Amino acid sequence: MKPLKVALLGCGVVGSQVIRLMHEQAADLTARVGAPLELAGVAVRRLGRKRDVTVDPALLTTDAEALVARDDVDIVIEVIGGIEPARSLIVSALSSGKSVVTANKALLAEDGATLHEAARAGAGDLYFEASVAGAIPLLRPLRESLAGDHVTRVLGIVNGTTNYILDKMDSTGASFTDALEEAQTLGYAEADPTADVEGFDAAAKAAILAGLAFHSRVTAAEVHREGITDITATDVASAKAMGYVIKLLAICARSDDGRSIGVRVHPAMIPRSHPLAGVREAYNAVFVEAESAGQLMFYGKGAGGAPTASAVLGDLVAVARNRLAGTHGPAESTYAERVVHPMGETVTRCHVALDVADKPGVLARVAELFAKHDVSIQTVRQEGHGDDAQLVIVTHRATDAALTATMEGLRELDIVRAVASVMRVEGDD
Amino acid sequence: MKPLKVALLGCGVVGSQVIRLMHEQAADLTARVGAPLELAGVAVRRLGRKRDVTVDPALLTTDAEALVARDDVDIVIEVIGGIEPARSLIVSALSSGKSVVTANKALLAEDGATLHEAARAGAGDLYFEASVAGAIPLLRPLRESLAGDHVTRVLGIVNGTTNYILDKMDSTGASFTDALEEAQTLGYAEADPTADVEGFDAAAKAAILAGLAFHSRVTAAEVHREGITDITATDVASAKAMGYVIKLLAICARSDDGRSIGVRVHPAMIPRSHPLAGVREAYNAVFVEAESAGQLMFYGKGAGGAPTASAVLGDLVAVARNRLAGTHGPAESTYAERVVHPMGETVTRCHVALDVADKPGVLARVAELFAKHDVSIQTVRQEGHGDDAQLVIVTHRATDAALTATMEGLRELDIVRAVASVMRVEGDD
Repeated sequence: MKPLKVALLGCGVVGSQVIRLMHEQAADLTARVGAPLELAGVAVRRLGRKRDVTVDPALLTTDAEALVARDDVDIVIEVIGGIEPARSLIVSALSSGKSVVTANKALLAEDGATLHEAARAGAGDLYFEASVAGAIPLLRPLRESLAGDHVTRVLGIVNGTTNYILDKMDSTGASFTDALEEAQTLGYAEADPTADVEGFDAAAKAAILAGLAFHSRVTAAEVHREGITDITATDVASAKAMGYVIKLLAICARSDDGRSIGVRVHPAMIPRSHPLAGVREAYNAVFVEAESAGQLMFYGKGAGGAPTASAVLGDLVAVARNRLAGTHGPAESTYAERVVHPMGETVTRCHVALDVADKPGVLARVAELFAKHDVSIQTVRQEGHGDDAQLVIVTHRATDAALTATMEGLRELDIVRAVASVMRVEGDD
Repeated sequence: MKPLKVALLGCGVVGSQVIRLMHEQAADLTARVGAPLELAGVAVRRLGRKRDVTVDPALLTTDAEALVARDDVDIVIEVIGGIEPARSLIVSALSSGKSVVTANKALLAEDGATLHEAARAGAGDLYFEASVAGAIPLLRPLRESLAGDHVTRVLGIVNGTTNYILDKMDSTGASFTDALEEAQTLGYAEADPTADVEGFDAAAKAAILAGLAFHSRVTAAEVHREGITDITATDVASAKAMGYVIKLLAICARSDDGRSIGVRVHPAMIPRSHPLAGVREAYNAVFVEAESAGQLMFYGKGAGGAPTASAVLGDLVAVARNRLAGTHGPAESTYAERVVHPMGETVTRCHVALDVADKPGVLARVAELFAKHDVSIQTVRQEGHGDDAQLVIVTHRATDAALTATMEGLRELDIVRAVASVMRVEGDD
């Protein structure tokens, strides 16, 4: 049986695991694909570098372009990451009719359109299961298993670093800084944690998820994004006291009229009884609501060499089988053409803590302000007395614009000494 | 565009939802498939029966065989259930080159080989996502997403009725009988609950899961099966006190040498920190351990008309796309040819409560018996005194045969008044 030839771009944490698995599982992969998979070459930046896996030196090359252009290569696996040269290499591979497996969330979220267009033109496959939530089979279920259903909302914990930090803050009472430091010591957070803690990583994944779930095209730039650096130990404790836990969520939701979608990443309070609340440490999970299927959740490891390589190999088997059968898998589905609406139109709920003067009439004036902005109050309670008095308010659903205007109004009220915290509430409607 | 014609066998709870969704989502389905899907006929037992959905009377027929044999039918959806006539109808459809979508777990678990053989012979698709865990996309991830990985173990809550009963017992302290009665009142349990509470339903699903996860052929008859009718409120309370919860689990595990598999359904204690422990009410969840992916969990509704129909429609879109492309999806994968080993060879752990005489030397004699059978004790504690004295023992991992022999030996010891409860412990190794 003629082998299918695979070019690997990148030999870092994920790439070296891909090589290891292709080698160790060669017999199984042959049985599952129907033909052997043969590594045709591995593009790296430096030839002499020490690697986690033994690679035949003859396979290594620094000329990724030449490797991708080789006529005998059937499938290209891209695990370099970043925008360039990854984009040019993928487009070049797809344009010449090769199939591509990639884990590149940043590129897909920034310029997926170019990649999908190249896949269509070349009639090859573009698979990218590993780009969101690592090892968790998630994109295939969204693309295929739910193809006969309508997804209404996706709530995801898609960044392990921030989940680790927030889980530590919740379980130990640690500050954000201390929890981040521990995450860095354990290797869960980078020395420069910006991409994780400011929500950029989660926003890229939210864009990919929203596109698949709602059959539309969404880019990272369209995702409303807030990070977790302002979350205090007090916020976490206050949420805990109310039966909530704070998670950084990627939320993609269809508008009530079904015409547009909201896509956002921000910290939110969710009830402890919600399936996502039990997602501990650096685990990821994505909660999907669909019209017929109801509530679904997918849970597992969102990062790491071996888990990500597992997702890459699942895609590799699929695209290899497709090539043998002379076909290709589902192409990008954008027929619904839903637009992303501005954050202000998103409907959500808020938990607000206000430091207030402890005197008669305070609640009346605060309530009046909420009413003025058409924001209805679900619960209000006063904590403390005198100079420590705090009003804790949870609203009903309202547009984010109305909630934001209410918060601005509260900051200007003379009887409000400070808006101590504002946090959206999700997962209990 | 020429429509693909779909024959539906059965118009009960699931079938009527399939018709509703095919009608309501016709435009979306056309966009996703690339051609319209047209209902060619609906086979029912009685024409005049009142149904949950409006069906053109001209489509109804009592002659399922003739419907399946029609040359213009491309795809057959079977939601009748049971062994016959479902098997003959599916084999007839597949043999004539049609593709089949079925939710029939009993048939697949009893005689999947015949169906898969017919699919191979006719070069059509046999898809059955709805047969296990209803709406949860599970079989496709196992068949495809994890195709580059090695599954080592599957732990599943795959029967909603028993999970509802055990959850009620756990949360309210109810007896089995009371919890069953409540489940029956709410429609979660049948008037004759045998198939659920004795584990037959879960065993069929375990057989299907084990086959897919381990690339082997497994039938329901090979599944070791114990139900939940003997679980008492005391068992549940005792598990709770130790930080465990009792669940009916379907467990499929590869032996340590990788050559055989154990497939079993029985109640087991799992730690409350385990992701499966949080699965409440009638929800299902399947926890998968794979060499590279690590721990994964899939959660959602395991039954019901609309959730099951969602899974059927996902399969329908896939097989319809395959037909348009002139190809078919992954066929049954049995290349590993692993055999199911007897329950006695399964390695597990046990929680045992013994009513004993409260006098010196009791523990020594009990410990000696465990040692004689090569069963190592992890923890032991005495509860109560005098006539109420109870020894609670948790073992280390041992073969089920050794554990069973130990329990038999304990029953014969004069110092043991009674073996009050024996329960396997899973999910904390």
